[in-house]
Amino acid sequence: MFEAAELGRRLSTKAYRARAPKVRAALLAAQQRLRTAAPFPVIVVFAGVDGAGKSETVNLLNAWMDPRWIVTRAFGEPSGEERERPEAWRFWRELPPRGRVALFLSAWYSRPVLDRAYRRLSRVEFEHQLSLLARFERTLADDGAVILKFWMHLGRRAQRKQLERLESDPLTRWRVTARNWQHWKMYDRFIDAAEQTIRATSTAHAPWMIVEGRNEEYRTLTVAQTLLDAMTQRLEARPPRRSRSPGAVTTPRTSGAAAGRTVLSALDMSARLDKRTFERELLRQQGELNRLQRRAVRAGVSTVLVFEGADAAGKGGAIRRVTAALDARECQVIPIAGPTDEERAHHYLWRFWRHLPRAGRITIFDRSWYGRVLVERVEGLTPAAEWRRAYAEINALEDQLIAHGMVLVKYWIHVTKDEQLRRFKTRAASPVKRWKITAEDWRNRGNWDAYEQAVNEMVERTSTHEAPWTLIPGNDKYYARVEVLRAACERLRKALKSRP
Amino acid sequence: MFEAAELGRRLSTKAYRARAPKVRAALLAAQQRLRTAAPFPVIVVFAGVDGAGKSETVNLLNAWMDPRWIVTRAFGEPSGEERERPEAWRFWRELPPRGRVALFLSAWYSRPVLDRAYRRLSRVEFEHQLSLLARFERTLADDGAVILKFWMHLGRRAQRKQLERLESDPLTRWRVTARNWQHWKMYDRFIDAAEQTIRATSTAHAPWMIVEGRNEEYRTLTVAQTLLDAMTQRLEARPPRRSRSPGAVTTPRTSGAAAGRTVLSALDMSARLDKRTFERELLRQQGELNRLQRRAVRAGVSTVLVFEGADAAGKGGAIRRVTAALDARECQVIPIAGPTDEERAHHYLWRFWRHLPRAGRITIFDRSWYGRVLVERVEGLTPAAEWRRAYAEINALEDQLIAHGMVLVKYWIHVTKDEQLRRFKTRAASPVKRWKITAEDWRNRGNWDAYEQAVNEMVERTSTHEAPWTLIPGNDKYYARVEVLRAACERLRKALKSRP
Repeated sequence: MFEAAELGRRLSTKAYRARAPKVRAALLAAQQRLRTAAPFPVIVVFAGVDGAGKSETVNLLNAWMDPRWIVTRAFGEPSGEERERPEAWRFWRELPPRGRVALFLSAWYSRPVLDRAYRRLSRVEFEHQLSLLARFERTLADDGAVILKFWMHLGRRAQRKQLERLESDPLTRWRVTARNWQHWKMYDRFIDAAEQTIRATSTAHAPWMIVEGRNEEYRTLTVAQTLLDAMTQRLEARPPRRSRSPGAVTTPRTSGAAAGRTVLSALDMSARLDKRTFERELLRQQGELNRLQRRAVRAGVSTVLVFEGADAAGKGGAIRRVTAALDARECQVIPIAGPTDEERAHHYLWRFWRHLPRAGRITIFDRSWYGRVLVERVEGLTPAAEWRRAYAEINALEDQLIAHGMVLVKYWIHVTKDEQLRRFKTRAASPVKRWKITAEDWRNRGNWDAYEQAVNEMVERTSTHEAPWTLIPGNDKYYARVEVLRAACERLRKALKSRP
Repeated sequence: MFEAAELGRRLSTKAYRARAPKVRAALLAAQQRLRTAAPFPVIVVFAGVDGAGKSETVNLLNAWMDPRWIVTRAFGEPSGEERERPEAWRFWRELPPRGRVALFLSAWYSRPVLDRAYRRLSRVEFEHQLSLLARFERTLADDGAVILKFWMHLGRRAQRKQLERLESDPLTRWRVTARNWQHWKMYDRFIDAAEQTIRATSTAHAPWMIVEGRNEEYRTLTVAQTLLDAMTQRLEARPPRRSRSPGAVTTPRTSGAAAGRTVLSALDMSARLDKRTFERELLRQQGELNRLQRRAVRAGVSTVLVFEGADAAGKGGAIRRVTAALDARECQVIPIAGPTDEERAHHYLWRFWRHLPRAGRITIFDRSWYGRVLVERVEGLTPAAEWRRAYAEINALEDQLIAHGMVLVKYWIHVTKDEQLRRFKTRAASPVKRWKITAEDWRNRGNWDAYEQAVNEMVERTSTHEAPWTLIPGNDKYYARVEVLRAACERLRKALKSRP
């Protein structure tokens, strides 16, 4: 695979001097257009052989372009906070907003390739990790990111020569470490891992480019020209037309809902608790949750609780019964309202990654990533192609939480249309609750059937064995609150039991 | 001090029912006004005796108000990443943007009070820490934050009774831990520390309110009414008139500049290096910096490099000579351009706190917090009262970095007016550098004298023994680049030497 990158390709100084200024000026112009139009982020990943000029190229691109709009990051050992979350967290943290170019060194391929070269991963395990990375890139590309990956290459002999050359000069000796030589001795293993990587993860939307690293001029211009072409091509492509019509209306899906029977209609909405039983059970479940959570802190088990439900379903009240049982230091409630502009400039999942809990902590999302396939779908805020894709993206996100050992409980608190109307009226009549009800709530109510269909499909597509939905009949608040606590306890107990 | 909070004050259920809905409705309205006008953040700190209802009150405020615009945080043990920065970092991270209300539990007073009660701090050390906290609150209040601090109190006997009551019921027993009893036994020590805290840190802009915690109705309404009054008072206060005229023009300061002689005019601007010496020295200093930085990684010593200088002074080129010497994984360059809206909604120092390096890492700021007393002053973007105050705020920030053991190097790279003109012309003539020069640069140039005065004053007021300015004659780029590296090496070497 790498033969073509060991041909000793070079560019004469004269040819370089003739072309470089033009490429540079064009790159600057492209960066400017990207920044002002801000329609997408550009993510450039550098990997490859030590001494093949990765850092030098990154440094040079910073010199050529306007560094204020470039995000340069190199990922070293993960911090404690990073280790406490799924591995992708640290990369999500640093993803560039739309309109910026990110240059990443030692990014997501670094750890798996190293682990494979040192044989800490079998071939099959490595293959699996690569497929997860391909999925990650797919998620970013689907959101519009331009992704380029450069493998900077040197042949075995060329690498040795390069290391020797640096070592022989007292002024550059510091650039070569014992680790560089150790890896050179493992050259074949690294190349083998690289070949497998490139084969498995070079896709149309996130291609690998192998660049011969011996000649600085050749290497620089190749990377710069490739980056320029990719940016120009996307800037000149016509923006995809975004349908603003509600997906639920234009493209009804066949599902249980069509038969008039949904996961929601199957709920027993008459479930009730009297006040006395409620008060006793509430304290009992709160006590149990508190005990379990203390064990979870010691075991480092984190929990994510997701609350979804129609307006006035009682999410807020249920959440407060949960937080009342917990040490406030171990628990954060994240209410999902409109995104900030930093959030809007990123992939829609970015704002949720931000708030994932540390080891032993709990994050409660009051509304969540499911907004994508609920309100955004029904209100037509997001084109059908995008919310349809979201099921897979959401499952991928939740897979990562679970693979990391987190407990994930997803609640849909359900009320009937009549009960919602009763609550709306009560709210409207109360001076301290009136604010809770807006014109939007009434409009949402008008879309009741579309929401019900969306909920049904959401549950069908995202209720997995590891991350099932907990559907709570919510017409009786007492019953719903106790059920929410009970379900959290049950899931946490199970997770703690399966720990050593 | 606490006698008045041990009188057994209570509110009858009837009186509570009559008043609560009105206060609640008014709080909601105030929250709404705060959010839409968004002129300031509200920070409410809860501290006090265990069992006095801190968490319950926070939970209740979340029920009464719209939780989407409330930030509720309780601070537990600091994470590794938090320990790697000055202690205030974790609080800066969570400060609310303008327009929101933050409810903080176990916040900045928690650790010092605990340390004092356990006698890990002497009375004098404790006093010193309190004065730093008062300064921190002052910084936030000066920026417009409304700060309220509640000490929720119970007498010694009342606390014992409360703990016993909770323990006697199997359903609430979980609320009482061994630690609660241990602290109860240390009651007098905690009260002593609390008294000292309240006396030292109750200020007009961040007052303490002592609230008797025995009676839920009394406690709730007292906190809610106090919060309401503070919000209303500020919302109804006339916004202070902001002068838009450049401070430097309206209020010339007497300083060295008046005598025609500034720290800049004293620089030897003829300093030069020939190309050969430059190339040798560059590699030598880069090698030295690399070696020192590897030791710094092992020792956990972090470094902050701040680059300031006139337009075209050569900051970018100097920064790239530094990064070329470093492992990219250990080093981040943060170019300071316009703030994002999240940044704009916070104190102006918030965006810099965000990027402080972890232990053993380097953060390079390409422009920095000094923008406040340079461009913002000269261009009249910030009223004179605010940029004048900034010297003290900046010194306080830098004190914290240094107290934490960080290395801080601040560069002013200086060019003469003639040299700048020459560079502007060269840039304007070059297709790849033309973008670097804008109308703004020419306008800034028109303010040359005002900038020179601002720089002079900045150096006078913020060059301290621990955080001196490094002034670099920049007319010769070779000389400047080597000097920048040399100064970084020197400061790092000194810091490493003073380590055990």
